[in-house]
Amino acid sequence: MNKHPETLISRNLEKLLVSYEQHRGTNFIDERRLPEAVIIHRVMEDLLEILFPGSSGKREITSENLPYVIGDMLNQVRCALKDQILLAYKHECKIISCREETCEFNADKAVETLLDSLSDIRTILKTDVKAFYEGDPAASSPEEVVISYPGLKAMAIHRIAHILYQLKVPLIPRIMSEISHSQTGIDIHPGAVIGDGLMIDHGTGVVIGETTVIGRNVKIYQGVTLGALSFPRNACGSLIRDQKRHPTIEDNVTIFAHATILGNITIGENSLVGSNVWLKEDVPKNTMVLSEQPKMTFRSVRKEKTDI
Amino acid sequence: MNKHPETLISRNLEKLLVSYEQHRGTNFIDERRLPEAVIIHRVMEDLLEILFPGSSGKREITSENLPYVIGDMLNQVRCALKDQILLAYKHECKIISCREETCEFNADKAVETLLDSLSDIRTILKTDVKAFYEGDPAASSPEEVVISYPGLKAMAIHRIAHILYQLKVPLIPRIMSEISHSQTGIDIHPGAVIGDGLMIDHGTGVVIGETTVIGRNVKIYQGVTLGALSFPRNACGSLIRDQKRHPTIEDNVTIFAHATILGNITIGENSLVGSNVWLKEDVPKNTMVLSEQPKMTFRSVRKEKTDI
Amino acid sequence: MNKHPETLISRNLEKLLVSYEQHRGTNFIDERRLPEAVIIHRVMEDLLEILFPGSSGKREITSENLPYVIGDMLNQVRCALKDQILLAYKHECKIISCREETCEFNADKAVETLLDSLSDIRTILKTDVKAFYEGDPAASSPEEVVISYPGLKAMAIHRIAHILYQLKVPLIPRIMSEISHSQTGIDIHPGAVIGDGLMIDHGTGVVIGETTVIGRNVKIYQGVTLGALSFPRNACGSLIRDQKRHPTIEDNVTIFAHATILGNITIGENSLVGSNVWLKEDVPKNTMVLSEQPKMTFRSVRKEKTDI
Repeated sequence: MNKHPETLISRNLEKLLVSYEQHRGTNFIDERRLPEAVIIHRVMEDLLEILFPGSSGKREITSENLPYVIGDMLNQVRCALKDQILLAYKHECKIISCREETCEFNADKAVETLLDSLSDIRTILKTDVKAFYEGDPAASSPEEVVISYPGLKAMAIHRIAHILYQLKVPLIPRIMSEISHSQTGIDIHPGAVIGDGLMIDHGTGVVIGETTVIGRNVKIYQGVTLGALSFPRNACGSLIRDQKRHPTIEDNVTIFAHATILGNITIGENSLVGSNVWLKEDVPKNTMVLSEQPKMTFRSVRKEKTDI
Repeated sequence: MNKHPETLISRNLEKLLVSYEQHRGTNFIDERRLPEAVIIHRVMEDLLEILFPGSSGKREITSENLPYVIGDMLNQVRCALKDQILLAYKHECKIISCREETCEFNADKAVETLLDSLSDIRTILKTDVKAFYEGDPAASSPEEVVISYPGLKAMAIHRIAHILYQLKVPLIPRIMSEISHSQTGIDIHPGAVIGDGLMIDHGTGVVIGETTVIGRNVKIYQGVTLGALSFPRNACGSLIRDQKRHPTIEDNVTIFAHATILGNITIGENSLVGSNVWLKEDVPKNTMVLSEQPKMTFRSVRKEKTDI
Repeated sequence: MNKHPETLISRNLEKLLVSYEQHRGTNFIDERRLPEAVIIHRVMEDLLEILFPGSSGKREITSENLPYVIGDMLNQVRCALKDQILLAYKHECKIISCREETCEFNADKAVETLLDSLSDIRTILKTDVKAFYEGDPAASSPEEVVISYPGLKAMAIHRIAHILYQLKVPLIPRIMSEISHSQTGIDIHPGAVIGDGLMIDHGTGVVIGETTVIGRNVKIYQGVTLGALSFPRNACGSLIRDQKRHPTIEDNVTIFAHATILGNITIGENSLVGSNVWLKEDVPKNTMVLSEQPKMTFRSVRKEKTDI
């Protein structure tokens, strides 16, 4: 082991250089730089502060400094996000080549569209905050929801990422949604279409797939999956990627913990899906769906303590 | 798109300023500053190092430097936490106004009570560490539990947050528990009352609600929910917030993975709740509860490979 | 409460010093310093950049700078990781004492073995990336998988941690796997043996136990547990720690969301385990296992809206 370290390094450098040659697609060499998650993370935090001014507690916001603080942040977001989106488009150009100006144009357009949507996003998020506060007896104030509820954070990030997804910005929307997934345990694909006033309580383990459509005032609890049932493949056996394969959840539906709803089905308005229900069929409106409880056995545990 | 950037910024600044006017409750303007999650996060890491000196590996702790290092950290925690708690009280004053000194007094009292509890918390956490090591064959040493087990970290943070919850400190306990939730996937409301020697193994997806009561030497596995069954509302239709609505788990109970226990029911001492069991009724002591397994069908997969 | 702060600090310092005396095993005083999670985290990010050069977006990697950038990172990893592994061995020496040189020797050997494995790990990870892209209709490109899929990150970290686990490096492998667990919600014990081309989709709540063995081209969805059924104890009633107690999953098996597979059983090649299935028995190859759906009841919700 007491080899000279250089040997160890150079030996493995050689092997890796060969591997980089052989296994393209897992490295990004001579491509224009990729977007950087750390910077996108920072942009996201600025956007959250713009949406909920003062909520980070990082600085005091007053009527006097408000226009300057927010104006400054909007400028910072515009620059940093434009750079990242431009990197994403240019990276894609390596694949489907296009004129440089197109990337510039698209990046400017994406940032402008997002900034132009912020006040509308605020209006929608207000309905989300209301839904959390009115739906959770443990919420002591709407402020507590804004400051500490992971479900609300996931919705704020989703409503931003979804706009960039609609504009077909490469890579960035998914990077944003995975930042949210990592922090909240809630996995919402940026493609999902979600109406006003969604409450996701607790949230860990929730999965909402790409082509899911959710109406207004829907409630979802921890561990709920809105997923795909099967993945149709084309003649060549490769996946068909742009097809509605996830559920549609209509207005005022409540889905309790660990329910699994699979496939392109519809849960009608005002319906309730009970905890642990496993559904792959449509549910009419105004319907409560419960699984018949499996019979339970009760016996003494004396000797079997360590056995399940 | 080649608009002058100022236009984009000023246009959206205007829209946002209007939105801040219209949608109060999602912004915190002209209120005294809010507590800052990043600082509370740092305080929490200091508290964990005080509880488990040396565990972060950030510096070596010796018999010689121990009193100075810990004394210094206690002082830092006292100052930083006092500031944050004061911000939380003052923010609340904006709502239910009170005399400034009351905030000061309460903040000092909260910090003092927490610091006075640290050695007792250590004694309890020792029982938690023991429970993890004795309960998990994959644990190679108690040290490994302290250094790397998310379930233990969640318990340490909960035992701290619960003390501030009991003192009715606003916002901070929930911010602490959500820091833990984000890092561990374990969602324990700071209100939950938890006895010595709780083991939460793996932990991701565990939800323990606000009014849950857990006895001594309880074991809980991943995905277990101790939740509320329904939310009673008052005459005006708004939620009744301070009512026992979550389970009571007595001493020596084990709850296996993904079991869901809902409502203000009691699981008697020494009982076992099997994996995936869904319970909304009391369980007597010394009882093993298992769900009858749903019949399973086994068929060849030849053609249906991509189908579920 | 207006006590002089010194009193508060000194009083609690005294109590804590007593507690450190009484409750050893939860503190690390006069032991050589422990490994530091923050540094291991940084090493892990460097290793991920070496495995997927350019993927972090932190800097542009070109054919020209590639050998220098990677060579430099290899050197940094070698030094930082050697220090951390040495700390881990030395800490263990406090328990099972050994000659200092042995720690040095083992630390060098561990780092060398890991670096010598990196190009092979890359080859395997290439198969993982392929599995994700071909298995998930929402994946828009292999690049998106590398940059944003938590399941791939969990596999990259596991394949590194597993090598150190095989070398019996103390503490570090588990610290690495818990960094991954915290970021991805996927809990893979570093001891698990996992073949090429594993896809873990969504991933939150997945638990893969220490003695699990997984073949090639296996697909696992969110919330799946590959766990132990019971923990045999020796005559003295303490756990037997090194025994195969988790499942063996053969080639080309797919396990759908929230399935729970417990005990040292075998799922034969090409088999499918349906969503929510709860298994503690062997499954022959080419078999699809589904739970018979519990009967479901549908009723009107008119009055019972808030009830589950």
